[in-house]
Amino acid sequence: MALQETGPSLAVVGVTGAVGQEFLSVLSDRDFPYRSIKMLASKRSAGQNISFQDKNYVVEELTADSFNGVDIALFSAGGSISKEFGPLAVERGSIVVDNSSAFRMDDGVPLVIPEVNPDAMKGIKVGNGKGALIANPNCSTIICLMAATPLHRHSKVLRMVVSTYQAASGAGAAAMRELEQQTHEVLAGKEPTCDIFQRQYAFNLFSHNSSVLPNGYNEEEMKLVKETRKIWNDPNIKVTATCIRVPVMRAHAESVNFQFETPLDEETARDILKNAPGVVVIDDRASNNFPTPLEVSNKDDVAVGRIRRDLSQDGNYGLDIFVCGDQIRKGAALNAVQIAELLL
Amino acid sequence: MALQETGPSLAVVGVTGAVGQEFLSVLSDRDFPYRSIKMLASKRSAGQNISFQDKNYVVEELTADSFNGVDIALFSAGGSISKEFGPLAVERGSIVVDNSSAFRMDDGVPLVIPEVNPDAMKGIKVGNGKGALIANPNCSTIICLMAATPLHRHSKVLRMVVSTYQAASGAGAAAMRELEQQTHEVLAGKEPTCDIFQRQYAFNLFSHNSSVLPNGYNEEEMKLVKETRKIWNDPNIKVTATCIRVPVMRAHAESVNFQFETPLDEETARDILKNAPGVVVIDDRASNNFPTPLEVSNKDDVAVGRIRRDLSQDGNYGLDIFVCGDQIRKGAALNAVQIAELLL
Repeated sequence: MALQETGPSLAVVGVTGAVGQEFLSVLSDRDFPYRSIKMLASKRSAGQNISFQDKNYVVEELTADSFNGVDIALFSAGGSISKEFGPLAVERGSIVVDNSSAFRMDDGVPLVIPEVNPDAMKGIKVGNGKGALIANPNCSTIICLMAATPLHRHSKVLRMVVSTYQAASGAGAAAMRELEQQTHEVLAGKEPTCDIFQRQYAFNLFSHNSSVLPNGYNEEEMKLVKETRKIWNDPNIKVTATCIRVPVMRAHAESVNFQFETPLDEETARDILKNAPGVVVIDDRASNNFPTPLEVSNKDDVAVGRIRRDLSQDGNYGLDIFVCGDQIRKGAALNAVQIAELLL
Repeated sequence: MALQETGPSLAVVGVTGAVGQEFLSVLSDRDFPYRSIKMLASKRSAGQNISFQDKNYVVEELTADSFNGVDIALFSAGGSISKEFGPLAVERGSIVVDNSSAFRMDDGVPLVIPEVNPDAMKGIKVGNGKGALIANPNCSTIICLMAATPLHRHSKVLRMVVSTYQAASGAGAAAMRELEQQTHEVLAGKEPTCDIFQRQYAFNLFSHNSSVLPNGYNEEEMKLVKETRKIWNDPNIKVTATCIRVPVMRAHAESVNFQFETPLDEETARDILKNAPGVVVIDDRASNNFPTPLEVSNKDDVAVGRIRRDLSQDGNYGLDIFVCGDQIRKGAALNAVQIAELLL
């Protein structure tokens, strides 16, 4: 029971969504201290009842005034809501931890994975009355960099080639329901209902549904490229990515190939990853046991396996790994709550 | 109706399996000429009836004598059957087109994709009474090289980084049934039945189920590495691969990153692929329409899209593409029948 007189006042924006619900679950799991919490959502969801830590709350409609007296606001209601209400919350003295892409690449807005670059938000604290924006990176970036950063610190990554296997949850709770409904339909020999995605998702996969830019990369891929540079604070990091949506519910997988500046043999890499915070190594070659999205679902840690020297590069300058992480948890809600913990 | 007096005599080994059945369907679709056809399988399946091109056949038990008088034998019954009966068939003067991995890397055994390296089987012909072995490459290799070879001919591939999204069919008809059964079970809230694979496959994905070698690569990945070198006849080609099984029925997808020796801009690459035999380009950025495994299922052509300059390499020395191909058809049966066509 983390409701207490001395904690900060919280607001959860987009509380009825998949990530919004996970914010509550993570706050509760981590005994996050707070003296009050506001449940905010669109007009459509206002009036709904939410039970949280033995107390009943009514979802309130999000307005500028919602943020009066709020110390920390956790946003996950889409980019346009963040763009409109994020700055209004900051004006009212709230520290906004935003899960959308609205501000991630803005100068002056820290883009933070607590295990990776907590210093980026140095000086932002609850209690000095000053509002601020902090951005939560994209789910694929967080999951990739949780494994890549400890290796980068040892041998400096020059280039990464990433292919993703992304779950339905990244497109929201409705996409998860659509995958389930379509699967029922296909198994029954019926035409699948395509509301969220433009094509059959059950027993199929497809290039990520975000817009494709003039350079041929989709927005999801460019997030991996640009956010990695910002988080690692190095504009020269070379990244290419191919982002694919697979018929899995809530955890992403990524195949990552590295080129390093200095040698890194696979035994050292395995040891580094075993000791990395928030990372678990599952790498049993004899029993063919490696990370899967299902195993990491609802878990905090990112799992890494298939750690091996890249045969296509000379010496120990290359590695291949396979990473899985819960998209809703470490890919979104957990990372945001960890940021909020750093604010206290 | 391709049953005719002048055609070769055929045998299909493993005719009751997923690829065996597809052999028959491809022979029929392509009006392959033959004067007789033997349906061969293990003792367990012997006695079954098969109707093919308006004629009824009884499945016979495979023995060494099965090959007396057989001109071309299409094998897809697993590596151990090929190892035992392939050489016996050759002794009896049959030309064996083998879909297993048994002989692929053997010196003197051509490893052939008809669109890529037909010259490798030069001199092997039906009608001179001499038996021979020809190997069908692994499905992932065929699908990758159908797209990669035309680019390789233009600009020479120095290095490929491949991540696969492989369908159930690669593990046989029983694996496809298991995926379907598990999906029913999971949707009904039941424990999934795991007979073929050691873990839940429905709504999940996992590192390819082949054995992992001491170098950390699994056998499927090493096939891509070694078969590419043999088919391109260049021991210096650098390939790394991460092979993943995804919950899709019968078509594989692959994300492929290239480094070239000479420049290749994306427009030229697209034109080359549009003109490549057995390849169709699906690359519509505006409508987010790219290849999917479902679309290529039961199709002959390999589909390529997401063709774009690799941002992580300088100039036009790098490309990313996404390829999909039917695992049972071009990945196995069609390629083998095309090889048989070259023998006539």
